[in-house]
Amino acid sequence: RDREHQGMAKNTNMRWRLPLVCLLWELAMIVLFGVFVRFGAEADAHWEEEKREMNLTSDMENDFYFRYPSFQDVHVMIFVGFGFLMTFLKRYGFGAVGFNFLLAAFGIQWALLMQGWFHSFKDGKILIGVENLINADFCVGSVCIAFGAILGKTSPIQLLVMTLFQVTLFSVNEYILLNLLHVKDAGGSMTIHTFGAYFGLTVTRILYRPNLEQSKDKQGSVYHSDLFAMIGTLYLWMYWPSFNSAISDHGDAQHRSAINTYCSLAACVLTTMAFSSMLQKKGKLDMVHIQNATLAGGVAVGTSAEMMLTPYGSLIVGSISGIVSTLGYVYFTPFLESRLHIQDTCGIHNLHAMPGLIGGIVGAITAAAATEDVYGKEGFIKAFDFTGVYQTRTPSIQGGFQAAGIVVSLLMAFAGGAIVGGILKLPIWGDAAAENCFEDGIYWEVPEDEESDVYHMHNPDKPASP
Amino acid sequence: RDREHQGMAKNTNMRWRLPLVCLLWELAMIVLFGVFVRFGAEADAHWEEEKREMNLTSDMENDFYFRYPSFQDVHVMIFVGFGFLMTFLKRYGFGAVGFNFLLAAFGIQWALLMQGWFHSFKDGKILIGVENLINADFCVGSVCIAFGAILGKTSPIQLLVMTLFQVTLFSVNEYILLNLLHVKDAGGSMTIHTFGAYFGLTVTRILYRPNLEQSKDKQGSVYHSDLFAMIGTLYLWMYWPSFNSAISDHGDAQHRSAINTYCSLAACVLTTMAFSSMLQKKGKLDMVHIQNATLAGGVAVGTSAEMMLTPYGSLIVGSISGIVSTLGYVYFTPFLESRLHIQDTCGIHNLHAMPGLIGGIVGAITAAAATEDVYGKEGFIKAFDFTGVYQTRTPSIQGGFQAAGIVVSLLMAFAGGAIVGGILKLPIWGDAAAENCFEDGIYWEVPEDEESDVYHMHNPDKPASP
Amino acid sequence: RDREHQGMAKNTNMRWRLPLVCLLWELAMIVLFGVFVRFGAEADAHWEEEKREMNLTSDMENDFYFRYPSFQDVHVMIFVGFGFLMTFLKRYGFGAVGFNFLLAAFGIQWALLMQGWFHSFKDGKILIGVENLINADFCVGSVCIAFGAILGKTSPIQLLVMTLFQVTLFSVNEYILLNLLHVKDAGGSMTIHTFGAYFGLTVTRILYRPNLEQSKDKQGSVYHSDLFAMIGTLYLWMYWPSFNSAISDHGDAQHRSAINTYCSLAACVLTTMAFSSMLQKKGKLDMVHIQNATLAGGVAVGTSAEMMLTPYGSLIVGSISGIVSTLGYVYFTPFLESRLHIQDTCGIHNLHAMPGLIGGIVGAITAAAATEDVYGKEGFIKAFDFTGVYQTRTPSIQGGFQAAGIVVSLLMAFAGGAIVGGILKLPIWGDAAAENCFEDGIYWEVPEDEESDVYHMHNPDKPASP
Repeated sequence: RDREHQGMAKNTNMRWRLPLVCLLWELAMIVLFGVFVRFGAEADAHWEEEKREMNLTSDMENDFYFRYPSFQDVHVMIFVGFGFLMTFLKRYGFGAVGFNFLLAAFGIQWALLMQGWFHSFKDGKILIGVENLINADFCVGSVCIAFGAILGKTSPIQLLVMTLFQVTLFSVNEYILLNLLHVKDAGGSMTIHTFGAYFGLTVTRILYRPNLEQSKDKQGSVYHSDLFAMIGTLYLWMYWPSFNSAISDHGDAQHRSAINTYCSLAACVLTTMAFSSMLQKKGKLDMVHIQNATLAGGVAVGTSAEMMLTPYGSLIVGSISGIVSTLGYVYFTPFLESRLHIQDTCGIHNLHAMPGLIGGIVGAITAAAATEDVYGKEGFIKAFDFTGVYQTRTPSIQGGFQAAGIVVSLLMAFAGGAIVGGILKLPIWGDAAAENCFEDGIYWEVPEDEESDVYHMHNPDKPASP
Repeated sequence: RDREHQGMAKNTNMRWRLPLVCLLWELAMIVLFGVFVRFGAEADAHWEEEKREMNLTSDMENDFYFRYPSFQDVHVMIFVGFGFLMTFLKRYGFGAVGFNFLLAAFGIQWALLMQGWFHSFKDGKILIGVENLINADFCVGSVCIAFGAILGKTSPIQLLVMTLFQVTLFSVNEYILLNLLHVKDAGGSMTIHTFGAYFGLTVTRILYRPNLEQSKDKQGSVYHSDLFAMIGTLYLWMYWPSFNSAISDHGDAQHRSAINTYCSLAACVLTTMAFSSMLQKKGKLDMVHIQNATLAGGVAVGTSAEMMLTPYGSLIVGSISGIVSTLGYVYFTPFLESRLHIQDTCGIHNLHAMPGLIGGIVGAITAAAATEDVYGKEGFIKAFDFTGVYQTRTPSIQGGFQAAGIVVSLLMAFAGGAIVGGILKLPIWGDAAAENCFEDGIYWEVPEDEESDVYHMHNPDKPASP
Repeated sequence: RDREHQGMAKNTNMRWRLPLVCLLWELAMIVLFGVFVRFGAEADAHWEEEKREMNLTSDMENDFYFRYPSFQDVHVMIFVGFGFLMTFLKRYGFGAVGFNFLLAAFGIQWALLMQGWFHSFKDGKILIGVENLINADFCVGSVCIAFGAILGKTSPIQLLVMTLFQVTLFSVNEYILLNLLHVKDAGGSMTIHTFGAYFGLTVTRILYRPNLEQSKDKQGSVYHSDLFAMIGTLYLWMYWPSFNSAISDHGDAQHRSAINTYCSLAACVLTTMAFSSMLQKKGKLDMVHIQNATLAGGVAVGTSAEMMLTPYGSLIVGSISGIVSTLGYVYFTPFLESRLHIQDTCGIHNLHAMPGLIGGIVGAITAAAATEDVYGKEGFIKAFDFTGVYQTRTPSIQGGFQAAGIVVSLLMAFAGGAIVGGILKLPIWGDAAAENCFEDGIYWEVPEDEESDVYHMHNPDKPASP
């Protein structure tokens, strides 16, 4: 079977397959949106009447103004952040940015539906507002993470198929965590990172390519591709406070999430730099670590940022996650590849999987340690939404449920990833042979060789090809 | 005449002309601002008293907080979005980003005046606030669009002259549409895109260069220039919801505009990818389409986004516009060049002109189809501002006026473009000969050849030039 | 001594030194944050009770919503703006972005403490909120500026040591200006730019390297590095209105600051282009000017933007600062290097020092010229905070104190820079020899030579190295 998967005679022509999938699926989106999706009250033209009914005196009370700036930051993280972070490969920049664009554009539509059915369904309609847009971006974020593991090795159709299934499973897992277990996870340490990363790692394990060293020469970066990747890194890093606070409760919770994330990420940069230098024999910094491990601090406070983690708690969590992530790149990734046959192109195990687990655990501990003294009587109830049937939950029970959320996310990721990986292994999706991996030329029209061109143009007296 | 225009002996030295234009015009701006421009009430230090008079209880009611985040997103679209989108040419990156910077920086000043005289003039003064800044950026957006058609073929002075006239005509056209026809066009499908694109196409037709194939080798991209262009694409794509909602009414209208635009753009990506692959014989994706046609969905809901277009309506509009735009790149652009002598460097006909027309038409239909049932009694009046002398307007009449707005914009664009094109054809502006088009070296100090340098540095044992 | 400093046998191995500094300092941050830093009232879970006590009816009154969008813009300026602005060097892109990342990530933590002790200390705790995050970013901005002077010539440890001291001195200087002199400086013309730039210039003077021409070939740019730098430039330029308005009073002051800065920057672009072209004998534009001098307009209204400078006043200030800054690049930088032995890699004297002084002076004049007529009775008191012990201050006295603020900032910069420069001269920090300056390979693992790689891959029939 693997032999088949590596043959030279692979048909990577997308001409009819990709258009068919894109157009049919978009048509399905239109039909489903037509049947189900409508504007929520705050985006509907009836808002004037709604405002009166809700006794709101100002348009400012529209959720749009509480969340739109954060939404835009999250949007940038998904499309520029993840897209450019993956351009580090010397000849896969088009695929990194372009396929990320494709899968995310499809994914947000499907996520609006899936999450809508679970969370915004009323009288047969899904009512959407800015919070739904954020959640759709979040959901797609988990697909972008999984994409990182299989980057360069899959066809765009495979990515769309994976997106379809992963968004579905994400929504189910999210429903279990948020609604059934009543778990807090505003920044998605469990739902986005742990789930997304272990899902992607399972998929890449199933799609294991024994002859991948045939494209080894293309798995590295070049000088400018590393700078492009830094654009992605920095936008993820800078906007992560918006990510973790985007759907927190209005007021202090959003404020606190941003501060905790800011602190955690700052600390993470220092420990990453320290370990990157320490683990290289000449003490030189490695761009792979700087591009990735510096972000682990954002992942690791994804659950707890809206809690009273405190700034120093954030520094501790950020420091540890930077260390763990950098160690992962140096020791764990080679081990995963050689021993477990997990080929993880971007090292999502180090950036999302392990920090995601840390984030889930820190969240469970922080929840378990909550007291009315620290949160205030009202703040305590509000922070964990201990109302209705959850009125009697204690912090330690909440901590237990938080921990259960990690386990559920892992199980969903492994099971889902195995099934989806099996589907993606079918020989009909047009993926490339091993020697053509990490190469844009397979799926993209690539411009002429840069060098000879420029030479020709600027050195007319020199021969066209040196 | 054309022969003259192509001669080798062209004087492209900007040394005295460009400084003269820049300095005199800036001086004129200072004088005109000194005479006319003052802070609006919400930016003036008298705001404390104003607040009391208007019975506002919170500083939050200052328009700044309703619009500033959107303003910044629009600002990024104009300077980074348009600027970098045009860096796809292999040797015109400085000109793309730099001249866009120059013309936009001048244009926003002149637009503040022109639009101010029409819309914010009170007691002999133009009173400005954040909404004026957004509108100035919008106006300049139409110039950036026109710049796309003539990219690489004009001198910076020509661009400044074009900006001066186009901003003037834009403001007149906008006044006719918004004030005389009482048309809705918050995202500018007609005022910005249709007008800007057909204006630019007319200008480039007048400036037709029969020998442009002499610089054919520089009209393509190189690998990294395509990645730079994707930065522009993504920032335009991500922030377009802010663009279309930036000057909508507070509350539901801004909220709705953002959602509609988000949906339209997502759908547009899928149909663009589908057609890009379908139209290439090996099914490979073309970066030109991904960089441009994916944005058509934002243009095509520019008029209707703030109306009750609904999410599925947005998906339909976005899907169609992506298809039309991609088809345009494949079939229409070559036709325009060979048959109509319209040399459209960036393909603005596909990205702005046709989607702009679609946007105008969709807006007219959506307005004509509006009912009190869908909008609510108050919402209906508020959405179309059916107050005062417009109290008796019906949706179908509004639809008719919307359609008239398209026609007016087209006529203004053709007439204005013809006149301005004629002015730009004067042999005094220092444009380059045909064989020097698309080449930064004419107007910029360009650093030494990248390759030989780097070689020299890193391979000291190899010869300096290979 | 200088001879020592230029030796070939320099030990630039960071393996133990850099990790040690990073880890120990991060540990110190954790301990100090643990002892001192807590959430401010608006980020604390007790906010519900606080709201009731303060009679706030809406979560919107939380300072988070007034300042968070501006904070994110400032954050982008510090990390992407400054980081990428400095990537213009052909082989120092990793160092530019990466070291800026490192020093800023450390600096914001230390700034939260230093500024916290001076400004947010209550009952033994530093209470932080979004305004503290902005101020920490501001403080680090002054370090990024100083970094511009020594770019390419120092080790990461030297940068961390400089950050430690400069943040400390910045906070002292800021305390003197804002609290003792009661000076207004919301955009930091004095505290950030004047102080930061003269501090950096003094440091680079002390670290003078007589043999720096040995790395002359690496001090230039290449085509794509100039485009990367333009990303930095544009983000600084676009978001500067947020920078200057981020910590102004709610309402009109924030609104006004943004407008003034927008106007000043627009004017600055035109005069920069004019002089850049005028000062080159073929009239060609110089990327160095466009990348830098276009930003001087933001620096030069840093003090006065929140005052009633008026839009035309802003145009005048912006125009002048663009001229001064461009002239500085052409005439002053070479003079500083040859005569005063000040090697200023990025030309911060032109972008920050001189425009910063202009900004301080314009601020003093604008303050001195303030009248109750222009500001309104309440607005006048609010704008300059003439309350409490400052109730009797007149505008002209305020102008005097503003001028004193410039002098104090200069003295602090010179004295502090001299001391810190002396410390950085110690031969223990691992800086590179003169011939290895401006070269990423010293402190970074740099990928294989771009050219030969790409050649090899795409032209398999050509020899691997041409």
